[in-house]
Amino acid sequence: MVRLAENTYGKCQVRVVRVKRDNPMHSFQEWSVEILLTGEFGECFTTGDNSRILATDTMKNTVYSLARDTKAESIEDFAFELSDYLIRNNPQVREATISIVSVPWTHIHVDGTTFPSAFQQTSGELQTTTVSYARGEEVAVTSGLKNLVVMKTANSGFEGFIRDSHTTLPETADRLLGTAVRAQWKYSSSSLDFDRLRGFARNTLLKTFAEHESRSVQHTLYAMGNALLEGAPEVEDIEITMPNKHCLLVDLSRFGKTNPNEIFVPTDEPYGYIEARLCRGN
Amino acid sequence: MVRLAENTYGKCQVRVVRVKRDNPMHSFQEWSVEILLTGEFGECFTTGDNSRILATDTMKNTVYSLARDTKAESIEDFAFELSDYLIRNNPQVREATISIVSVPWTHIHVDGTTFPSAFQQTSGELQTTTVSYARGEEVAVTSGLKNLVVMKTANSGFEGFIRDSHTTLPETADRLLGTAVRAQWKYSSSSLDFDRLRGFARNTLLKTFAEHESRSVQHTLYAMGNALLEGAPEVEDIEITMPNKHCLLVDLSRFGKTNPNEIFVPTDEPYGYIEARLCRGN
Amino acid sequence: MVRLAENTYGKCQVRVVRVKRDNPMHSFQEWSVEILLTGEFGECFTTGDNSRILATDTMKNTVYSLARDTKAESIEDFAFELSDYLIRNNPQVREATISIVSVPWTHIHVDGTTFPSAFQQTSGELQTTTVSYARGEEVAVTSGLKNLVVMKTANSGFEGFIRDSHTTLPETADRLLGTAVRAQWKYSSSSLDFDRLRGFARNTLLKTFAEHESRSVQHTLYAMGNALLEGAPEVEDIEITMPNKHCLLVDLSRFGKTNPNEIFVPTDEPYGYIEARLCRGN
Amino acid sequence: MVRLAENTYGKCQVRVVRVKRDNPMHSFQEWSVEILLTGEFGECFTTGDNSRILATDTMKNTVYSLARDTKAESIEDFAFELSDYLIRNNPQVREATISIVSVPWTHIHVDGTTFPSAFQQTSGELQTTTVSYARGEEVAVTSGLKNLVVMKTANSGFEGFIRDSHTTLPETADRLLGTAVRAQWKYSSSSLDFDRLRGFARNTLLKTFAEHESRSVQHTLYAMGNALLEGAPEVEDIEITMPNKHCLLVDLSRFGKTNPNEIFVPTDEPYGYIEARLCRGN
Repeated sequence: MVRLAENTYGKCQVRVVRVKRDNPMHSFQEWSVEILLTGEFGECFTTGDNSRILATDTMKNTVYSLARDTKAESIEDFAFELSDYLIRNNPQVREATISIVSVPWTHIHVDGTTFPSAFQQTSGELQTTTVSYARGEEVAVTSGLKNLVVMKTANSGFEGFIRDSHTTLPETADRLLGTAVRAQWKYSSSSLDFDRLRGFARNTLLKTFAEHESRSVQHTLYAMGNALLEGAPEVEDIEITMPNKHCLLVDLSRFGKTNPNEIFVPTDEPYGYIEARLCRGN
Repeated sequence: MVRLAENTYGKCQVRVVRVKRDNPMHSFQEWSVEILLTGEFGECFTTGDNSRILATDTMKNTVYSLARDTKAESIEDFAFELSDYLIRNNPQVREATISIVSVPWTHIHVDGTTFPSAFQQTSGELQTTTVSYARGEEVAVTSGLKNLVVMKTANSGFEGFIRDSHTTLPETADRLLGTAVRAQWKYSSSSLDFDRLRGFARNTLLKTFAEHESRSVQHTLYAMGNALLEGAPEVEDIEITMPNKHCLLVDLSRFGKTNPNEIFVPTDEPYGYIEARLCRGN
Repeated sequence: MVRLAENTYGKCQVRVVRVKRDNPMHSFQEWSVEILLTGEFGECFTTGDNSRILATDTMKNTVYSLARDTKAESIEDFAFELSDYLIRNNPQVREATISIVSVPWTHIHVDGTTFPSAFQQTSGELQTTTVSYARGEEVAVTSGLKNLVVMKTANSGFEGFIRDSHTTLPETADRLLGTAVRAQWKYSSSSLDFDRLRGFARNTLLKTFAEHESRSVQHTLYAMGNALLEGAPEVEDIEITMPNKHCLLVDLSRFGKTNPNEIFVPTDEPYGYIEARLCRGN
Repeated sequence: MVRLAENTYGKCQVRVVRVKRDNPMHSFQEWSVEILLTGEFGECFTTGDNSRILATDTMKNTVYSLARDTKAESIEDFAFELSDYLIRNNPQVREATISIVSVPWTHIHVDGTTFPSAFQQTSGELQTTTVSYARGEEVAVTSGLKNLVVMKTANSGFEGFIRDSHTTLPETADRLLGTAVRAQWKYSSSSLDFDRLRGFARNTLLKTFAEHESRSVQHTLYAMGNALLEGAPEVEDIEITMPNKHCLLVDLSRFGKTNPNEIFVPTDEPYGYIEARLCRGN
């Protein structure tokens, strides 16, 4: 006897650009939206009955249409609007999960002049949110960022680890520490000043990474999460992923030269992977 | 009061090639290995004490070293060996999760001749496994595949779905259905003939996709999972992801031409996303 | 005094799928088309006069429209049709260069059954063509392939190269040789049986790679090009690119083990790069 | 009779990181270096004689070794050093072409504090150079940038283009214009203050894009190149590529809404492609 244990469906990478021109200084936002629904969709799988299916093409249109009317400025507020719309209009939906990635655009600024209707994509770093709205329950808002690529050239060591028969890595009190931070922090409420809190969270993570006396990626990751939880009472927990983007010290002695931590080869693979979730409690 | 709720760490994308030359007909395997450990690693995060840390560089070396001696032919068996080695040698480790992706290489074959020491990468499809070994518990073996890109040009419709104020998609009894299948099936035992079962699973998924009278992606996904569970008693459950790689019918009436389902534009984004897990039971 | 030295423009990645259903055994072709035009377009750049500009959106529509009517089976023939249409209808165009990449799809085949309307993307290898039609001149047809990923586990060495103060690579009479072949061969005529010639060219390249006693990538590349020029009088010259996808032998002596060319680490960067063009003549 | 018409070889993606610590404010540079050589290498192809071959592995080591000693700050100066070293030490080399891509890293700056040994990768934009040194000839230095992603929300139209039977694009006096600029400008000398000139060139391109009253991508591209040639006598010519990253206006009338150029769908393919080279002269 086979049965459907779990299922979800939706639309991914619904990209939308929103330009505001009500002011000589235009604004430009680019979002990539993902909608996932769960609910009473079993018959669609088992018998091919589509009568409860909201087409994913319709979801896409809904994103465009709501983007036109929304007053939301933050991706968190727009994600909530979308989830609320879908829950209100679709009784067969039990939970709507909306994820939005915001692509960074800023006004072009040259030689002291800011150009009001010209923009530049300024970073590979992405701002993210996931809003989960289960019918009749509290809305869960998680904000985050990904691909925040950072590097420490001091205050980072890795010593005292296990040495077994396969260990060849030397201990070092001074190494490069590079990573592409991905972080997601969960809020205790769904009505907050999300853009201000995002700015605070991002600054806290960045500053802690920069200042920490690191004994390992784990050690620095924990310090970063801890600093955010201590600084922002609105944050309930935080999950951080920090792949270790290794920079290998080049052996220049083969060419009769020293290499006092100056010349490195950055490598993409294999890479160390560190992930943890920090929360409040005992 | 902040605390560490969950954590894991390890090494990703440890690529290894294994050539066997004990026979004029060489064999060539390329695997990408990922190791993730959980256990008593809290102090590393909170105080920077690395004394229980197996360096991820050591994990990498362990992969290379075990690859030299192993008798394993299947990725499942090699993943088990790795997890077993790590659990036996590291009392601080509670669970080792090993994932392996196998890249498809086959002998070059031209005009009826198979070349014994020349190989070709023959597909973008990847074979996968994840073996989780928690100390003192049963080993869990999951096998799968990803990026199996397939297309139906007949026997696929999408009708009878909800029409609301944002619905513009026409109903159709005849559309293209394309997807990149990702599937992961869990075995009821850790000692099976994994390569034979993989072959059976893959054939079953492919054949069901090809033969199904599809009313939706969901409908076909369920048929595929159901066929595997019915055909292979060794499989306990299966999770399938089938993004809908849309092919849009081009409106050629603007150029005075008909388009009886012949000319389409394949698009990458946005894309529909369908995911489900099927299991045994009532 | 500034002037426009050279310019071209067009549309890239116009993807089109062509399904034929006039037979129970359907056919499925996916092409990605690029159109580049040169001609009397200077005013567009210098004064913003668009009166001679064929919009790139129109080029895209032209691809879809011609795909509906064409009898062409080969990408070479369709590229010629497109170039011919553009030259005939646009007096301001001096030269139209059409490049087409064909994505490999084949019927799904399981357990001896070929499914007539189900297809599978079977390789990452791509078939290519570039047709250049300059008004009043001979049409130049170049065919090719890219991302043909191949590997030799025997009959490949690299010895006798220069040893200077920065050389650390050991000489070896037995190494792995891996590459992703890109080749482009130019035909002496624009009306040939292109699909048959493509099959012959591909087989010749593959077979020569497999059989060659290789002293270097250069040596094997030349043998491949030479074999095609000797075997196909219709081919005038051939350009081949063979990046050296290095597989590094792992030093297992650190773990008390030998490694008789069995365990390697494949790496993506840095990579050697070898490129040459072979032609006929003295 | 087959012969070798042209050939080149070398090493690509030699990534190197250079940290300077002689000052509490560290500096961090990441470069990806490519070396291509031409010269008397024919025998290697035709007979497998490697005696004139500088191994690409040796080229890689040379990059690391020279990076340790160099006083060069700009990628142009380091590329010249490398080319000069290779030409001086390898009589069989006729020309060495060195291309370097610089990845943007800047000090982490939070709340008014600049952290002296912590860095952030701040953009997807890359700075490039190509230095070609042919024995006995002038060294040619080309500088450039790529992936400068920019957008105009005003002062951009596209009107007056050809309307043929395949034209469906409406004329518009107000559209979004987005692109990822790639530019390469050639200097008249190999000893210049390259970092200052790069800053000037980049600012000029960016400012002209922002200010231009654009009638087409071509029109704006020309204005950008023209501005650089007029402003920098050290620049001889400039080649610019500006793919048109289309943002499609969404038809919201289907949902009973207007869309006064506010909601767009950014698309990646197909895309318009515009390329031109501007030079001095009549």
